[in-house]
Amino acid sequence: MSIKVLLDESEIPRQWYNLAADLPTPMQPPIGPDGSPITPDKLAPVFPMNLIEQEVCQDRWVDIPEEILEILYRWRPSPLRRAVFLERALGTPARIYYKDESVSPAGSHKPNTAVAQAWYNKQFGIEHLTTETGAGQWGSALSFACALVGLSCKVFMVRISFDQKPYRRLMMETWGGTCIASPSRETQAGRSILEQDPDTPGSLGIAISEAIEAAVSDPNGKTRYSLGSVLNHVMLHQTIIGLETKKQLEKIGEKKVDVVIGCAGGGSNYAGLAFPFMADKIAGADIEIIPTEPSSCPTLTRGPFAYDYGDTVGMTPLLPMHTLGHTFVPPPIHAGGLRYHGIAPLVSQSVIEGLATPRAMHQLECYQAAVLFARTEGVIPAPETSHAIACAIQEAEKAKQEGKERTILFNFSGHGLMDLVGYEKYFEGKLDDYPLPEELMNKSLEALKDLPKPKAAKSGRW
Amino acid sequence: MSIKVLLDESEIPRQWYNLAADLPTPMQPPIGPDGSPITPDKLAPVFPMNLIEQEVCQDRWVDIPEEILEILYRWRPSPLRRAVFLERALGTPARIYYKDESVSPAGSHKPNTAVAQAWYNKQFGIEHLTTETGAGQWGSALSFACALVGLSCKVFMVRISFDQKPYRRLMMETWGGTCIASPSRETQAGRSILEQDPDTPGSLGIAISEAIEAAVSDPNGKTRYSLGSVLNHVMLHQTIIGLETKKQLEKIGEKKVDVVIGCAGGGSNYAGLAFPFMADKIAGADIEIIPTEPSSCPTLTRGPFAYDYGDTVGMTPLLPMHTLGHTFVPPPIHAGGLRYHGIAPLVSQSVIEGLATPRAMHQLECYQAAVLFARTEGVIPAPETSHAIACAIQEAEKAKQEGKERTILFNFSGHGLMDLVGYEKYFEGKLDDYPLPEELMNKSLEALKDLPKPKAAKSGRW
Repeated sequence: MSIKVLLDESEIPRQWYNLAADLPTPMQPPIGPDGSPITPDKLAPVFPMNLIEQEVCQDRWVDIPEEILEILYRWRPSPLRRAVFLERALGTPARIYYKDESVSPAGSHKPNTAVAQAWYNKQFGIEHLTTETGAGQWGSALSFACALVGLSCKVFMVRISFDQKPYRRLMMETWGGTCIASPSRETQAGRSILEQDPDTPGSLGIAISEAIEAAVSDPNGKTRYSLGSVLNHVMLHQTIIGLETKKQLEKIGEKKVDVVIGCAGGGSNYAGLAFPFMADKIAGADIEIIPTEPSSCPTLTRGPFAYDYGDTVGMTPLLPMHTLGHTFVPPPIHAGGLRYHGIAPLVSQSVIEGLATPRAMHQLECYQAAVLFARTEGVIPAPETSHAIACAIQEAEKAKQEGKERTILFNFSGHGLMDLVGYEKYFEGKLDDYPLPEELMNKSLEALKDLPKPKAAKSGRW
Repeated sequence: MSIKVLLDESEIPRQWYNLAADLPTPMQPPIGPDGSPITPDKLAPVFPMNLIEQEVCQDRWVDIPEEILEILYRWRPSPLRRAVFLERALGTPARIYYKDESVSPAGSHKPNTAVAQAWYNKQFGIEHLTTETGAGQWGSALSFACALVGLSCKVFMVRISFDQKPYRRLMMETWGGTCIASPSRETQAGRSILEQDPDTPGSLGIAISEAIEAAVSDPNGKTRYSLGSVLNHVMLHQTIIGLETKKQLEKIGEKKVDVVIGCAGGGSNYAGLAFPFMADKIAGADIEIIPTEPSSCPTLTRGPFAYDYGDTVGMTPLLPMHTLGHTFVPPPIHAGGLRYHGIAPLVSQSVIEGLATPRAMHQLECYQAAVLFARTEGVIPAPETSHAIACAIQEAEKAKQEGKERTILFNFSGHGLMDLVGYEKYFEGKLDDYPLPEELMNKSLEALKDLPKPKAAKSGRW
């Protein structure tokens, strides 16, 4: 029995899958502060037009340019692995598979879209990209992609992470990116915040403001902004994960997957694996699809579906999504990539359609699962990824109780080599489940009702 | 053109290659303090007999047990990559290939022997392994292997690294290993040193003493010691690297390799790649084989071939090898894995036979090469690995000057994600070439003449 399934470069999927084409109900458009739908031209100073076209695209399949594939070949197709050693440890009759996205040079799934976005920007004549980063995963992935494509990259990194996580900053710099503590003196937004509070730890919202300002204020128009999750084109680029997985399962004669699992913060690694399987589900296949999230930031399981800002300060358009309110500050769980108040509209819409069943996971159960995984399968998971592993273990235990031979698939979105401090605290008994601050959440949910509402019902997203 | 060459699990080599069988002159035996050859039974308290048998084995091929392969399949066969993007940046007519050993869960080639050693110990009825580690690469690889095989693992980590490199310690702990700052209170050796100097930063020599003492003093006889380089059986286990590479080159029709390069500290990753090609060279093939080392620790390029201790305090048998003298303390270059006064006897012997041409590299040139590599090929190299990359670039530049289409192969022994501090210092201009402390070296070389000499010339190693 083979414990990993590889594909040749010649077997890589040559098109991305666009779930928007298959969703039973059309997506609702993002809206501006006046409630009107955002038109593509309004986004032109921020994103290149070729990516805006992908953002609004309704085609089921989108060709992947050959030049992008040539870069992805460095680590793609990524391995699909069978977790035989974990299965044995659990004594489960289930077969557990995981798609290993940790093999990219940046250590996660993020480069799948970083490379595509950098390439489309380069094609459009752009020379510089800006972005923000919290813990540093996305900033390092974009720096990596820009190095390979030939763009300069400026990353505004939240000050407290900049100070506390020098390794992520060093990855960006090694790839030639410029990493700046945010708030910075480089932007109007940064300067005005520093004037009020010179010692601010910064926030993702401030960093987004700075990155967008730095992009749109380039007098030569050669700079654009790049976002690592949430948007439709990001989900699109990530579907290569699930498309490869389907080919790999087919290759080993695994005809039916019963459960598909991915951890969801902004939603991109989950969507990347799950959307191609969701297409089968829409066509009638019996598959349970589970986005997992922290119980202390339960966007999909407890947030309403509403229009809300994508960032914490309200700079972005309002997006139709499950949200805990853009002012919600989740507890400091170590899975920083899952500490997001909202989620990708495509992910939200598919939950509303009943195509996926979100599940919230407690931090301690996730670390316990991660350690079991490391000691059986050998790879140390990122704290975000542990939310998918813990759920896969729950499903494997269920299969054991029921005596059923189920096929469980999850996305191993990234390794944890840059996140070992969380493990240290776990071993020292210093972690708990960080219960959801209900009052704080209720307050931020309450604020939702004062936000702009769409002017008129629309069919079609844009 | 394919930029990576994969093998199926079914194509993995099923035997290791033993260079000792093909060397024109038989290896000289290690000797004890009295000058007599060390016999296998003297090693029995330290190593299990099945590994001692491998250490003295003269067979050309040694079968790899199926159970070991099953573990190696997690990341093996590892990819052979063509560095097309580096080639383009250099404008060289050379084809540059690198074997990517960074894909193992521990991030380097070390698990190839860690898994084998853990498995053989387990087979022999051993329950606990001890070892020492400097920067932590080997300790984490052995912890990983013990987790998968089902042994407990105790790692004595040099105090100063223990304090300065918590991430490596956390990797060990996540895999279930016990990591102890050395000197510790757990051993007689540790206690006596702490009594003299409670604030000692520790040393690799002290850590070796502690690990061996902890192994041999187990009253139940269920503990052995494990070493990550230098010894014959370690070189043997690593030859899977070169054997896979030969299959991969054959697969893409690359008939002849002109240059084979590996960085050499104790020698294991270099030997792993190079020895199978050396077999061809012995049989008449025209291949240049280059072990690279730091110019500030020039064991092969400037050290004499002599009997010397393997450790700094003189606990081990004396080994016939190139050495700078076991009291030599190299400057604090960031490639900690290359800061070793001696080298594997098999590597030394093959240099004496004229089968390899060592080359010393300066630290700054290595970092420059590493950064170019990261920004073209996308993977951030370990500081040790950068010594192989810098040499490959030298060879590619030479091919360019000569207008020759050469085939250059090197071992990408590990990634640098846990070693980013060196990059930081390089970018800040705080690194230099750390010139060789000639006086210090001369003093330690001088001390060699007072060491025990072999009693009588022997043919055959043991």
